[in-house]
Amino acid sequence: MIVDGVPLRPLAAAAERDAVIVIDQRALPHGLLFERLCTPQDVYTAIRDMWVRGAPLIGAVAAYGLALQALSDAGDAALQAATGRLLSARPTAVNLSWALQRLLGHLLALPVSERRDAAWVEAGAIAEEDVQVNAAIGRHGLPLLQAVAARRPGPVNLLTHCNAGWLATVDWGTATSPIYLAHAAGLPVHVWVDETRPRNQGASLTAWELGQAGVPHTVIADNAGGHLMQHGRVDLVIVGCDRVTARGDVCNKIGTYLKALAARDNDVPFFVAMPTSTLDPSLGDGLREVPIEERSAREVTHVTGRDAAGAVVEVQLTPDGSVAANPAFDVTPARLVSGLITEHGVVVAQEGALRRLREVRR
Amino acid sequence: MIVDGVPLRPLAAAAERDAVIVIDQRALPHGLLFERLCTPQDVYTAIRDMWVRGAPLIGAVAAYGLALQALSDAGDAALQAATGRLLSARPTAVNLSWALQRLLGHLLALPVSERRDAAWVEAGAIAEEDVQVNAAIGRHGLPLLQAVAARRPGPVNLLTHCNAGWLATVDWGTATSPIYLAHAAGLPVHVWVDETRPRNQGASLTAWELGQAGVPHTVIADNAGGHLMQHGRVDLVIVGCDRVTARGDVCNKIGTYLKALAARDNDVPFFVAMPTSTLDPSLGDGLREVPIEERSAREVTHVTGRDAAGAVVEVQLTPDGSVAANPAFDVTPARLVSGLITEHGVVVAQEGALRRLREVRR
Repeated sequence: MIVDGVPLRPLAAAAERDAVIVIDQRALPHGLLFERLCTPQDVYTAIRDMWVRGAPLIGAVAAYGLALQALSDAGDAALQAATGRLLSARPTAVNLSWALQRLLGHLLALPVSERRDAAWVEAGAIAEEDVQVNAAIGRHGLPLLQAVAARRPGPVNLLTHCNAGWLATVDWGTATSPIYLAHAAGLPVHVWVDETRPRNQGASLTAWELGQAGVPHTVIADNAGGHLMQHGRVDLVIVGCDRVTARGDVCNKIGTYLKALAARDNDVPFFVAMPTSTLDPSLGDGLREVPIEERSAREVTHVTGRDAAGAVVEVQLTPDGSVAANPAFDVTPARLVSGLITEHGVVVAQEGALRRLREVRR
Repeated sequence: MIVDGVPLRPLAAAAERDAVIVIDQRALPHGLLFERLCTPQDVYTAIRDMWVRGAPLIGAVAAYGLALQALSDAGDAALQAATGRLLSARPTAVNLSWALQRLLGHLLALPVSERRDAAWVEAGAIAEEDVQVNAAIGRHGLPLLQAVAARRPGPVNLLTHCNAGWLATVDWGTATSPIYLAHAAGLPVHVWVDETRPRNQGASLTAWELGQAGVPHTVIADNAGGHLMQHGRVDLVIVGCDRVTARGDVCNKIGTYLKALAARDNDVPFFVAMPTSTLDPSLGDGLREVPIEERSAREVTHVTGRDAAGAVVEVQLTPDGSVAANPAFDVTPARLVSGLITEHGVVVAQEGALRRLREVRR
């Protein structure tokens, strides 16, 4: 995407093939900082501490993490150990596992001497495929917005949760891809941006992205979406996902389930933008089977923002002595999902449709 | 309630009958500040700017605002003008209107010369009645908690939204009253406290109250409640309310509706603690008829907390140029409400039951 007139991605391989450069997303929206990751440990830290986040981006960055491992030791044991380590950085998103297993399988089939270069090429392919996948999600999602626009005048009002924008991917975003495409095509859109506590990815990342792209948007507290839907102010919900089970249960940022309930209660279509790499056919019942990451309580008790002097500071919201809990994801049952927007088209969140989708992918 | 060993209320009449002293709730949880309100304008500002908030407390403080008016001019026109002005401070809570109309009606029936003293006495009666009403809500709500405790070992897990605690009333709180009573009776309880963006009344007020009273609690992002209910970690939801319509639709802090949907989807009982003064029989369809206050966007884009040096500072969360919307309340349809806990007992959220309740009140 274009930022300040310059094409920008949240992930770029160094020309010297010795590092990967990422946007440190913790600094947004108040600063645009880049970090150079030179070792698998750097990549592990960047994923665990959420310098980079978003299921597709995590997968691509992790692949480069394994490629960085191959620079120093491309033996089976070293690659397998690095894969295990990188996998443990975030437990919920399945793309992390998907990208690492793909790259590891590719490398283990090659002579050790060829792995170093092959790893770099394959990591690059994973990243480029993500761009193509997201562009295809945009093309398949666009008619949903066009259908609303055809029904009545005025902008199409979308609601999204968390950040499933280009910052969460290598480019385009997943949930935002149809929105950027519509905006570029001159279709008037307006996005309600859930701030997405506790880490505020909506208020800090999605709002920033949309602002940079000139897409009209309004930030709201996560509490407000139900009320807006009750009053007909949301035409369509599109969110991303971190893992989708074989039967279509959707694991995504905590709070997604509440929006899906409100959408159902108000007959608002609720769509999930899903690269097929996010499918985890090994799981059925999302509620029982998807591991939900419990993150630090400090993300709830403290928040970071920019003070009047322009400094970025962290402040405490809660009284001393009050503890907090911080489950990072929830599961939206398939019954609440109107459809999954994939790179192969829009499909229903049902076992049969998802099985056929996996067959297309093979 | 007791704070640091000292009995404390959020509202106290000055012994000289020339002012009302309130806790400035904007300073909590990082400071406990008191403000002396000496004029109706002071009271208006304190309500509008949320030094005091919570439907029952607003009603009692507003009554003292009218009593302060009677100190300088107790004529019909002056009292009516002050009533109109105070009513406009917050549009949603009906208790404000209820308390002011009750006091105004009482005063207009008296000779002007008697109004000054009568206003003070009647405002005091409104405040004291609130304490009794809330204590009765506690007694009627307690069996709901006892029933959970009788079913299984371990603490009763409640979830509450916003602050319907003693800080929102003259004492005891509404939603918290059964909780404080249970805790005092030795029944183990644990409260999930929704932080309640954008103003964080849960994180800053409810958590503080519960901590002062030694009630085990955990602060969560507003997004987390649905996930907790899906996993059986919430036995009972109890919230307060700002206005309840004749047919039982409940207007309360923005986000309440989302929790009611999640409670219904997971068979978790969803109760509303409701002093009958919160009933507005003039309204039927809450969604169409309850006026929803739209507050400043700054409450969404900025947040106040305590920095590492102990200073209370405001920080900006959103990018420059991103706008925000801030509807302060939403309406939970009666169909999602398991029951209303009133000072006269628990009733269903249905027109007939609410009509009978109004007859009891007369």
